[in-house]
Amino acid sequence: MTAALDRLRDAGWVRTRHGSASTVQLPAAAAERIAPLSATGEAGPLIDLRRAVPAAPQELYLEATRRAVDRAGPLLAEDGEPGPGIAELRAAIAARYSHEGTATRPEQILVTSGARAALTLLAAHFRPRVALVEIPTFFDALRVLRAPGTRLVGCQVTTDGWDPDQLRDAFTAARGNLAYLVPDFHNPTGALMSAHTRRTVSLLAAEHQVTLVVDETMRDLDLRDQPDPVPRMRGALLIGSTSKSIRGGLRIGWIRASASLIRELQDHPLAGPLSASPMQQLVAAELLGDLEPVLGRRRQELRRQRDHLSGLIAEDGRWHFTRPPGGLALWLRLTTDLADTVVERARRNGVALAAGPRFAADATLAHHLRVPYTPPLDVLDEIAAVLDDACRDGAR
Amino acid sequence: MTAALDRLRDAGWVRTRHGSASTVQLPAAAAERIAPLSATGEAGPLIDLRRAVPAAPQELYLEATRRAVDRAGPLLAEDGEPGPGIAELRAAIAARYSHEGTATRPEQILVTSGARAALTLLAAHFRPRVALVEIPTFFDALRVLRAPGTRLVGCQVTTDGWDPDQLRDAFTAARGNLAYLVPDFHNPTGALMSAHTRRTVSLLAAEHQVTLVVDETMRDLDLRDQPDPVPRMRGALLIGSTSKSIRGGLRIGWIRASASLIRELQDHPLAGPLSASPMQQLVAAELLGDLEPVLGRRRQELRRQRDHLSGLIAEDGRWHFTRPPGGLALWLRLTTDLADTVVERARRNGVALAAGPRFAADATLAHHLRVPYTPPLDVLDEIAAVLDDACRDGAR
Repeated sequence: MTAALDRLRDAGWVRTRHGSASTVQLPAAAAERIAPLSATGEAGPLIDLRRAVPAAPQELYLEATRRAVDRAGPLLAEDGEPGPGIAELRAAIAARYSHEGTATRPEQILVTSGARAALTLLAAHFRPRVALVEIPTFFDALRVLRAPGTRLVGCQVTTDGWDPDQLRDAFTAARGNLAYLVPDFHNPTGALMSAHTRRTVSLLAAEHQVTLVVDETMRDLDLRDQPDPVPRMRGALLIGSTSKSIRGGLRIGWIRASASLIRELQDHPLAGPLSASPMQQLVAAELLGDLEPVLGRRRQELRRQRDHLSGLIAEDGRWHFTRPPGGLALWLRLTTDLADTVVERARRNGVALAAGPRFAADATLAHHLRVPYTPPLDVLDEIAAVLDDACRDGAR
Repeated sequence: MTAALDRLRDAGWVRTRHGSASTVQLPAAAAERIAPLSATGEAGPLIDLRRAVPAAPQELYLEATRRAVDRAGPLLAEDGEPGPGIAELRAAIAARYSHEGTATRPEQILVTSGARAALTLLAAHFRPRVALVEIPTFFDALRVLRAPGTRLVGCQVTTDGWDPDQLRDAFTAARGNLAYLVPDFHNPTGALMSAHTRRTVSLLAAEHQVTLVVDETMRDLDLRDQPDPVPRMRGALLIGSTSKSIRGGLRIGWIRASASLIRELQDHPLAGPLSASPMQQLVAAELLGDLEPVLGRRRQELRRQRDHLSGLIAEDGRWHFTRPPGGLALWLRLTTDLADTVVERARRNGVALAAGPRFAADATLAHHLRVPYTPPLDVLDEIAAVLDDACRDGAR
């Protein structure tokens, strides 16, 4: 395991934990994400898979930053105060939608400091009494939507997709309020909503006057062998982000909506605090300008990682899963153990995972487990071994 | 005026307005800040002084970014997810407090995407029923604090400072809640709170169990000829920012508090969306490492600008003001005209200013006007001439 760990350590995946916080020599973000685990007093390294983060193209990001610095003069002549986003980035984002068949003007884009920030702004603007969410869904979205006074109603998603009856009930319960959906390679199941279900959702939203917020953060991570174009939900406010396509640390996201709603959102008191640094926006514009080769490589790598991990843990009575058509993780249903128990055991063996209940608005999914396949292949071997141990324990 | 305008245009201060939005060749942030004015259908350039923004050291910022890129490797190996701030920046900020006599550990610093973001997080965490604010105060702070359910109570500040009786009444009214104060070169009056008044405020806050939030964004802009050290308010949560000391577009601010409160704030759902890009944090760390020469030059320039504008508009029965000991603007009390009227006239002559009521929680200050002295000296000549015209009109 040592060679694999060295590689991981080099790539920032593994940190050696210390008994005392003061001896930690690492950048804070990493050190503190691991800090809660040090409380257990265990020694040894940790593979932290509690968040599903693809390996980012470091050199590409640095080169884009260098190019941005070289032409930042006009941008720096401005006052740097928050606004709807720099013209170049809004135009680049709009052009990408238009290119994909969803005609979009730059005035329809509001740049934010990420998808989380975009959802935060929308939730603060609409202040829904009820928010419809998928069960499971992205856990940070649950935190944002669970604002004081907002009640969550759920609609189950499995690796097979969305249940039409549950959708109907949930939209009825959310009448006049807001729905937050992730139809493209849904996090964490990886499910892709069919064109038929999309039409159903659009009709339900219209019928029940529900503001439809669609998070497309995972949309670029299409891992199908022969992909058809992914249809877009009609009548939805779209949230986009560079966090999975490029790099989370870029901290760039956006909202696509009508130009008039964008103007309203821009006037919200939270719009300023949730806006993105102009320089990072220029870097994002640089990167979006030539994104397809990056995405091509990323998809190829993720496909290999997905297939490798799927192969390692396949055909096992202790869990079920479906190889997902996209996204960053396998979504396991454990047949014998509680996910919290397996997570605890895996953590003792150096792998930190997120259990199902974290993704559930209603504390269900006790038998589910998300296993990101984002690490390198030899590390996936180690993860599969740890998982095997963690579930073997349970069989004892 | 042409030569001055050319210089301004080069520096990003002036944009030529166009009848049609599609002909605007400028970065969006600038173009859109000016856009509302185009609605009047007037031609001609605009000197936009609605925000007080000092000229930023462009080359310095770019050099710091280049240095950050060169050593960003370890930072980019991390996942880029939101956290409390990168270790190096938290340490640099803490060291600066400690150097100034306020012993601070890195764990007491939470980095945010600016002072606005810091105040937003504190307001969301404490959810005060009542917030004490100065009248006038920074208008974006009013927007953040005017969250649903929060009632504002005011305490007047003049260029002479804070009234002890009003402070006592306001703290009594805010009992058990929150106060937001800007004691260092208060925005927009420039007033500096005396050590005596600071002690009074600290005692009042303790007596009435008021959470004291002190915004030190302007603290570095000390323009006194022979400055004593500015004392710090005791028992306060401190907000800091690089926006006035370095550059607003850097979008870096922070909260200094107890390590335990910082941990609590870090767990708030808004902490992620309000966090700063890791790369901008590294740039900020680069800049904070050698800030004193930058600040020295900035203070010298602002002092000259303040004295120039003060000289141009001094000794005039149409307004009163006191030369401020620091900050970015003169705070005029007009003796004959309403500020809104003067602002409207000045705007017609190409100068956009912010009138007093914008800074008031209670829509008072109708006779007050903020005039930033941040532009170059020859532009200040133009601004003084426009102001003279705008008030002469009123005398007719």
